[in-house]
Amino acid sequence: MTPSPACLARQIEQLSEIGRTVQGGVSRLAFTREDMAGRALLRGWMQEAGLEPERDPVGNLIGTLPGNRPGAPTLACGSHIDTVVNAGKYDGIVGMLAAVECARVLHKQGGLNCTLKVINFVMEESSRFGAGYGFGSRVMAGLPISKQELFARDRSKVLLARAVQELEGWETNSRIATERTALRETEKDIENSRFDWSSVRAFVELHIEQGPVLERAGKPIGIVTAVAAPTRLHLEIAGESNHSGTTPMDLRHDALAAAAEMILAVETLAAQSDTRKVVATVGVIQNEPNVMNVIPGRVELRVDIRSADAAAKRVYTETITESIRAIAARRAVGIELTTLTDETPVTFSDTVIGAIERACVARGIDALYLPSGAGHDAAHIARVAPTGMLFIPSRGGISHDPREFSSSDEIGCGAEVLVKSLVELDKLSD
Amino acid sequence: MTPSPACLARQIEQLSEIGRTVQGGVSRLAFTREDMAGRALLRGWMQEAGLEPERDPVGNLIGTLPGNRPGAPTLACGSHIDTVVNAGKYDGIVGMLAAVECARVLHKQGGLNCTLKVINFVMEESSRFGAGYGFGSRVMAGLPISKQELFARDRSKVLLARAVQELEGWETNSRIATERTALRETEKDIENSRFDWSSVRAFVELHIEQGPVLERAGKPIGIVTAVAAPTRLHLEIAGESNHSGTTPMDLRHDALAAAAEMILAVETLAAQSDTRKVVATVGVIQNEPNVMNVIPGRVELRVDIRSADAAAKRVYTETITESIRAIAARRAVGIELTTLTDETPVTFSDTVIGAIERACVARGIDALYLPSGAGHDAAHIARVAPTGMLFIPSRGGISHDPREFSSSDEIGCGAEVLVKSLVELDKLSD
Repeated sequence: MTPSPACLARQIEQLSEIGRTVQGGVSRLAFTREDMAGRALLRGWMQEAGLEPERDPVGNLIGTLPGNRPGAPTLACGSHIDTVVNAGKYDGIVGMLAAVECARVLHKQGGLNCTLKVINFVMEESSRFGAGYGFGSRVMAGLPISKQELFARDRSKVLLARAVQELEGWETNSRIATERTALRETEKDIENSRFDWSSVRAFVELHIEQGPVLERAGKPIGIVTAVAAPTRLHLEIAGESNHSGTTPMDLRHDALAAAAEMILAVETLAAQSDTRKVVATVGVIQNEPNVMNVIPGRVELRVDIRSADAAAKRVYTETITESIRAIAARRAVGIELTTLTDETPVTFSDTVIGAIERACVARGIDALYLPSGAGHDAAHIARVAPTGMLFIPSRGGISHDPREFSSSDEIGCGAEVLVKSLVELDKLSD
Repeated sequence: MTPSPACLARQIEQLSEIGRTVQGGVSRLAFTREDMAGRALLRGWMQEAGLEPERDPVGNLIGTLPGNRPGAPTLACGSHIDTVVNAGKYDGIVGMLAAVECARVLHKQGGLNCTLKVINFVMEESSRFGAGYGFGSRVMAGLPISKQELFARDRSKVLLARAVQELEGWETNSRIATERTALRETEKDIENSRFDWSSVRAFVELHIEQGPVLERAGKPIGIVTAVAAPTRLHLEIAGESNHSGTTPMDLRHDALAAAAEMILAVETLAAQSDTRKVVATVGVIQNEPNVMNVIPGRVELRVDIRSADAAAKRVYTETITESIRAIAARRAVGIELTTLTDETPVTFSDTVIGAIERACVARGIDALYLPSGAGHDAAHIARVAPTGMLFIPSRGGISHDPREFSSSDEIGCGAEVLVKSLVELDKLSD
């Protein structure tokens, strides 16, 4: 008996109806009514699959399938179902529903030696409050959550801490009269939601690639070796704002022209990066005064540098910093360079990678080894337990968009490899 | 007897107190209470100088010093006193006050053969309504004013036509019950404000350079040969928006990186332009979605190309258009290129230039010949009467900013050359 692609396809459609947008996408931002409705549906599916769902104080939903052998370790899998604004139907959802489907299959087959925990992490996406990604997985892993993050507000000025407190007790939680109370209660809840990973043998997450690599390579499964972590730079370029008609070209200090050179340097250096280890993007630009007849006087850029290889990322960051300073010096514009974040890439567990490999071989699947450019809950769990991930292809590499797509066959194949990987990991407990 | 720099300095200070901003600048936008207060002050100074001021229906203020010889032609000079937001104290104002001061001197000396008209053009600056510059001078010259322009609104949604109607009859003009009435009345007023230039021998405008050329060259006076006119392009670059972490460098179609190449092409080509005939600037950029972890999918640029040489501007525009298309093609991004405006440069009258030259020689001044990169009322008047301009230096080339500065000596020198130029032009009527 194997996971049912038809059942998964039906559940994906059903979930995508909650928060459906006019553009055909899905908006189910964390801790909103839509998120709560989606979670309620998921809780029902967990129960149907034979899992006993429990909610931790911050909102992670953990379904348990008890193991057959007392004293055997625990295996865990899962993902998230919250989305960005006007998202697709697959990011997070595929891995979450596949995990529940695997539990159903394993339950029907009489269970594993190990206890299986199927985890729905709360608020993986950072869109609503703009804080770091993977709030729920960081809480479960006991990683630090800053006060600043709990004080973040969404567009309607709702505090993250308040959203956590109103969770499932929507609009009726009488404890949280003030924001200060909400903050204090949330800090307690975070403490009480830290999960005990000591008995966990492995955590596995299935996810869509959100990139074009598997599709281009024609491979159905990606075995994720590591998760790239971003280094993010903020550049502030101070030129000289002047009349665009009266200032000769050789007397200008155009902040936007300087920024343009820097944008191209960021791109060129990443394209040259040793064996494609680094990707780098200028995603954000602010130009002042941004009017037709004034030479730009001040430009801000934000640079996102990612690599699964910490050393390669460091070398890139040093080199691009030098280039940026040289461009500024040559053009006699001011430059202020700030590092916004500098995270360390995560390398996945050889044990878990080995189990996924054996699962692929058993299914006759030719998998591709690749790092993940995007962050995932698994990257946080990897800090506290042996962890691995597998990817399925994303059509056109498109994600966070209504056009996001993975076929039912691809999803079914991913679920099959996931269940087989769990079986392989279960064998290690013998 | 010569113009008094001390008197001019005092008047400049007094005028700058009307609309003074906390940043030390001046905001006296056209048709506002501040503009009206400034105009009232100017009207008084005109009368003190021996001029008989009259207002035309759209608000241009014309002071007349009758000529001594019946049948002699008319000479005209003037500028504007409205400002941009948080402007300096000199743009327009210097030329306007110098023109009144010249009239005072000429009046005291018994007048000219020619009748002298000292004109304060209403709304030279386009800041308030965002329409074209030089509304008042275009009206006086009989140049077309579009319905669209009269329908323009300021930030408080006030219609330009309504502002014209409320002119000096502030809040009490009972004719303008509706915007439609305001529009109809303004169209009549425009028709009735067209000036009869048939007897005008010359119009001369003194203005600050608003650029760094005179200061760099160490010259006190610039004789303006022509006024550059802008060609303005709008570019819309359509790339592919994707995840910044998961999309390899070689599979990207980054709209911002393409835009960066185009910005540099605009700059490089202008810097190479034959004998510095063209300046070109990308002043406006809009990037979408403009978030840290998404490769930019869509960028808009606005390019401002200026030259006093129509042929050089045409060649530049053709060449940059080709470069932009080539960059888009090479990067496989979409490009839509629209021409927003394509104006013809104005060449000034040899007669007027000759008179300014003789005035400089008579005063022992080594003048510099240069085109104006910025637009001025004189550029509109040049379409209907022999016209010329003279510039005085702007410290650091800074304009439209509280730091705008020209010294009292420089202003006095400009006024002296202006009065002498009028005398030279008067001689031609013999």
